[in-house]
Amino acid sequence: MILEVGKLSVRPEAVDEFEDAYSKATHVLSSAAGHIDHKMHRSLDVPGHYLLIAQWETLEAHMVGFRQSELFHQWRGIIGPYFAEAPDVEHYEVID
Amino acid sequence: MILEVGKLSVRPEAVDEFEDAYSKATHVLSSAAGHIDHKMHRSLDVPGHYLLIAQWETLEAHMVGFRQSELFHQWRGIIGPYFAEAPDVEHYEVID
Repeated sequence: MILEVGKLSVRPEAVDEFEDAYSKATHVLSSAAGHIDHKMHRSLDVPGHYLLIAQWETLEAHMVGFRQSELFHQWRGIIGPYFAEAPDVEHYEVID
Repeated sequence: MILEVGKLSVRPEAVDEFEDAYSKATHVLSSAAGHIDHKMHRSLDVPGHYLLIAQWETLEAHMVGFRQSELFHQWRGIIGPYFAEAPDVEHYEVID
């Protein structure tokens, strides 16, 4: 299992629309092969900052299986219009 | 419950020492009042990048109860010497 951690920056005037869009897009991510679970988090420090933490079976399941699929275009098509800038995505493995 | 998410940048030549230090310091964090759980993660993309995800009962439990305590000085004293730069810490609440 690996973690995808994406820092998202949403235009502050569009946070309500973003959260509504996310509620409509979350099932797209859930339906990807190799997807285990994901949660979206709202920053308590900076308005418009969000953190997506997704668990995938492997790095390839995210970067190849999902990112190169039609599902990724659906997902980004629904939530992407509210981004202020490109997401900052990094992958991790648990060491503890 | 809130999340503390800390992006840590460790000097690449010191990653083994950092991981060893973390294994010795993890109990310090666990013993803080209001601490629920935490996990350390190693980046699969950038050598020396780590992500600490800690669950706290409240924001205040982290920022006041822990950060202003002697435990914080113990924690940072053990893992801090391996940092390449100051950690980037942000707090979140789950929205999904």
